[in-house]
Amino acid sequence: MSRLVTLLGATGSIGRSTRAVVAENPERLKIDVVVGGRDAAALARVAVETGARFAALADQAGGAALAEALAGTGIKCGAGRSAVLDAAAMPSDIVVSAISGAAGLEATFAALVAGRVIALANKESLVCAGAAVMARAHQVGARILPLDSEHNALFQVLGAEPIASVSKMTLTASGGPFRTWPAERIAAATPEQALAHPNYAMGAKITIDSASMMNKGLELIEARFLFGVEADQLDVLVHPQQIVHGLVTFRDGSVSAGMAVPDMRIAAAHCLGVDGRLDAPASRFLDLAMTAPLSFERPDLVRFPALRLALAALAASGAAPAILNAANEIAVEAFLAGRIGFPGIPALVEATCEALASGLAAPEDIAGALAVDHEARNHARLLLSQGRFAVT
Amino acid sequence: MSRLVTLLGATGSIGRSTRAVVAENPERLKIDVVVGGRDAAALARVAVETGARFAALADQAGGAALAEALAGTGIKCGAGRSAVLDAAAMPSDIVVSAISGAAGLEATFAALVAGRVIALANKESLVCAGAAVMARAHQVGARILPLDSEHNALFQVLGAEPIASVSKMTLTASGGPFRTWPAERIAAATPEQALAHPNYAMGAKITIDSASMMNKGLELIEARFLFGVEADQLDVLVHPQQIVHGLVTFRDGSVSAGMAVPDMRIAAAHCLGVDGRLDAPASRFLDLAMTAPLSFERPDLVRFPALRLALAALAASGAAPAILNAANEIAVEAFLAGRIGFPGIPALVEATCEALASGLAAPEDIAGALAVDHEARNHARLLLSQGRFAVT
Repeated sequence: MSRLVTLLGATGSIGRSTRAVVAENPERLKIDVVVGGRDAAALARVAVETGARFAALADQAGGAALAEALAGTGIKCGAGRSAVLDAAAMPSDIVVSAISGAAGLEATFAALVAGRVIALANKESLVCAGAAVMARAHQVGARILPLDSEHNALFQVLGAEPIASVSKMTLTASGGPFRTWPAERIAAATPEQALAHPNYAMGAKITIDSASMMNKGLELIEARFLFGVEADQLDVLVHPQQIVHGLVTFRDGSVSAGMAVPDMRIAAAHCLGVDGRLDAPASRFLDLAMTAPLSFERPDLVRFPALRLALAALAASGAAPAILNAANEIAVEAFLAGRIGFPGIPALVEATCEALASGLAAPEDIAGALAVDHEARNHARLLLSQGRFAVT
Repeated sequence: MSRLVTLLGATGSIGRSTRAVVAENPERLKIDVVVGGRDAAALARVAVETGARFAALADQAGGAALAEALAGTGIKCGAGRSAVLDAAAMPSDIVVSAISGAAGLEATFAALVAGRVIALANKESLVCAGAAVMARAHQVGARILPLDSEHNALFQVLGAEPIASVSKMTLTASGGPFRTWPAERIAAATPEQALAHPNYAMGAKITIDSASMMNKGLELIEARFLFGVEADQLDVLVHPQQIVHGLVTFRDGSVSAGMAVPDMRIAAAHCLGVDGRLDAPASRFLDLAMTAPLSFERPDLVRFPALRLALAALAASGAAPAILNAANEIAVEAFLAGRIGFPGIPALVEATCEALASGLAAPEDIAGALAVDHEARNHARLLLSQGRFAVT
């Protein structure tokens, strides 16, 4: 019997990786439910291609287009928030949670059902509501497996070791397209330059976060909740070759490193192979003798202030990570729209954090996390409207 | 309550590493029994320093000197083969098996007692009698933890994964002092040059084996029995920085690498920390940002024919590994004594393997393994006495 997979975020880059792995293993995996954001035509194509039984589009307005595109296929569909939450809760063995942004948070929570594996790629689930999501997973008896390359690597090399054995967890960062750029040049970076990620083809938001290194900061916050380590046990190393994705340093000095070629299908395959590793094609295996030497360097918090802000939010905890994340979403949107320059991203995030962090209590549940998110977005938009971070 | 440690090979380099780790953790570990080879004075010093209750010397002739050196200390002692086997079987929680050569094989077997952890560094236990040792450990309910850096790294990163998940296991090699030497220069290498290992201070035998890369070949054979993988799943990469010690490639393309600074105390600490990782001093932690880039290359089987011979013995299995190992011990002795040149080592090993491999059955037990060992040594000595491999 194939395992049934629900794919939340079916049309994005993680959705694509997941579909590729499922297609390679038709005897073991079957995509049953697909959920997309706004692109009805793309979601319909994915639903037909995967043979899904149900498709849900987050954008209510696209519901008619989806229904029309699926007419005669026998695939049921729905649109809007409640359709997405219904889809997330439908019976399945594995839910891949890859809807990006705060929208993915509610869907992740709805997917937390007893006996399930949640392959989690939605950052906000852990950044904004990490304690609540992990507590709920524990309470209902769902297993959360991280789908990000970095967290997946840490998860794999931690294995069955108790967290008390761990001295340090290190996430690696590519350093992004601006790794070697001087600060003045970074200050003048255009969206096109920031979107030129050296290794991965990903969505625009995460690619900009990679250029600012905010992405790595958000990943540190995720790791804190995912693994239950302290803020000061988390560390970042810049590793341009992106072969080592994460390292666990044990108390006795042994270090276990999770490695792989930079290909998101590998972490997806690990999550989907819960009842035994899947076989990858030979082309996806790492050949270290054919790889450039692996180098590592400390991140530069002066040239990459977004990482400094994320480290501060990690240490502060409470509502700070959710505020950081919401302000960053608004800032990246504004940067991509040409409203602010690249240094405007951390500047807007910092101003929002400073304005709100002391006033907002730590979210106790999903509703609380969404309220913080809403408040922080509004404040960031307000600051933006005041024109303080505008491109000069 | 401290765990009691029996230290077989107390005066060698692994014995020293083990003693250092125990000394760092006096509340958790206590050395109770020590066994040495020939140096009575050194063994007596170790016994007194560690507060051991019993000391045994393998060399019967040194028994009187040991007794004299320990007079008035209250430490009991014995000498000769049976004293060593008695010592190995004395009650303890962890036995560190680090007597080098075939002599360590019987002691390892004697130490296989229910409920025990055997931290195994004696190569011959697995090279010459791997199937018998692993079967016995399984039968009595003893756990074998590898103490070699390479196997320990593989053991740690394999963790609780079933061996069916594994595509490949890779051991790394420093490449030794001749890594970059052309074949003609290696052919003229002196014992002094071969003893100049770039990273570790070890005994002479293993250092020569490292220069010829026979050491890595023997380690591949060990890994086969230790982990139960097939010969063609085992691989070597030359990695001059010696930070990555072993890599497990899983079927889905994920790779877990065991890393640490090149310090034998780290693997010893892992083995000794069976009830929870021990704490290492800060100086023993890896800092990748301060480390040279990590490079990997395929081994050159033309310049390092000993590795080619070991790969052939690994594939042939049966008595071949025991013959290879015995012939190599004789060859290394002869090289260190100036009787043969460096290329004489693989030449003598190859001639011995060719002469005996088809005639000797696979050893079924320790006695059988020791018989093969004896036969192979005799044959290698015979070839040596014929002067075919003499320095010209």
